[in-house]
Amino acid sequence: MTYCLAISVNKGLVFASDSRTNAGVDYVATYSKMHRFVWPQERSLVLLTAGSLATSQAVVNAIQSDLEDPDAAFNLRKGKHLYDLASYIGTLSQREQQLHAPALEKSNASAEASFILGGQINGKACEIYMIYPQGNYISASEDTPYLQIGENKYGKPILDRIITPTTSLEDAARCAMVSLDSTVRSNISVGLPIELAIHTNNNIEPVWHSKYAAFSPMYKSLQKQWNEGLRQAFSGLPRFDWEKDN
Amino acid sequence: MTYCLAISVNKGLVFASDSRTNAGVDYVATYSKMHRFVWPQERSLVLLTAGSLATSQAVVNAIQSDLEDPDAAFNLRKGKHLYDLASYIGTLSQREQQLHAPALEKSNASAEASFILGGQINGKACEIYMIYPQGNYISASEDTPYLQIGENKYGKPILDRIITPTTSLEDAARCAMVSLDSTVRSNISVGLPIELAIHTNNNIEPVWHSKYAAFSPMYKSLQKQWNEGLRQAFSGLPRFDWEKDN
Repeated sequence: MTYCLAISVNKGLVFASDSRTNAGVDYVATYSKMHRFVWPQERSLVLLTAGSLATSQAVVNAIQSDLEDPDAAFNLRKGKHLYDLASYIGTLSQREQQLHAPALEKSNASAEASFILGGQINGKACEIYMIYPQGNYISASEDTPYLQIGENKYGKPILDRIITPTTSLEDAARCAMVSLDSTVRSNISVGLPIELAIHTNNNIEPVWHSKYAAFSPMYKSLQKQWNEGLRQAFSGLPRFDWEKDN
Repeated sequence: MTYCLAISVNKGLVFASDSRTNAGVDYVATYSKMHRFVWPQERSLVLLTAGSLATSQAVVNAIQSDLEDPDAAFNLRKGKHLYDLASYIGTLSQREQQLHAPALEKSNASAEASFILGGQINGKACEIYMIYPQGNYISASEDTPYLQIGENKYGKPILDRIITPTTSLEDAARCAMVSLDSTVRSNISVGLPIELAIHTNNNIEPVWHSKYAAFSPMYKSLQKQWNEGLRQAFSGLPRFDWEKDN
């Protein structure tokens, strides 16, 4: 499995992804699931992938081929709106899945993949979209200012508690790291390193990007503080009325 | 959906369950999923149910019928070991599922149900078992001192952080409430009231039992304190090296 998420706040966008891929439990590998496409002053995009690694890679390859092909009917540089690009990725994903579906069904395997596409086209608002395996897509909203793909449940409670449109980019990035950390702890199919990217609203430049392994000082310190903070929060919980004070 | 869990610590057992049942989104109802069976000094049992409400109710009815039937081949009072009882419940569950499976398949519905059975038989240790829809079962262990059924992912991270065999019964009960609360917040198919039961090791009597609705002072206070504690823990997380102090 995989866990990726994108958060949309007033000040910009935060993207985070883990790096574990597995086919069964005996083939576990590390792959980046975060792909960045930037044309400064024009458009800055981040694509996150979950699901079949073959489908994810084929979609990224098709995106590259279309970008290199001057006769391509469409590519990431052409759409006027971010939803045009989401629709394009949905089409590429479906095309790739259908190509291999008959063979995969015989092996009881799935070619399904999900994507999050986010970023900004110059003059437009920051946006994030989730593209379903079926090729359709949804955007985030003020009430649900984040989107998740993959193993999304373990890391959802902290997002529900912390994230609102007025959350700062720094806090949103910390919250994404906590959400990833909770998932890594509870599910062995989600693993380090964590990748983090931050796009600041109206700054159509390469996104800030960083990778955190288990030994990264920032990640280690965040893990430690969060664990201690949670224990402290836990020890402050009210006592049952029948409970002795000790 | 449903979310139930049982925690086994050195001092005894904690059981917790939500009360929401739904068939689709338009038939949502409140049902208790916690059933207690006690023969003082002899055995004290708690059964938690998740999955098909029809199967869960039929299994509880069959348990009652067998208890009332002096000629029953087996019942909850007869097994020497808790795993004998787990096996019996698995058999009842499979029998009930198979009875309705052909009709349910035509409606694309499932008769599957999962159970947690825990408690103590006089002279034996406290134990908890999870019974799969297929009728087989597993017990908890020192390394994994809890079992969950239903919508289990949202509430798992806090259990992974807090629960060890040496956790007190009171802390285990608070942790179960936090685990339920996180799930209720993140998933509308899990709902209040929460039921909580505590069995103290070697005290083969009716378990301590309580029900918490949204307006219960203990639950409201726990929600508030936990939310504030989490926000405080969050605000204490380390800053990125590029971050301005404000």
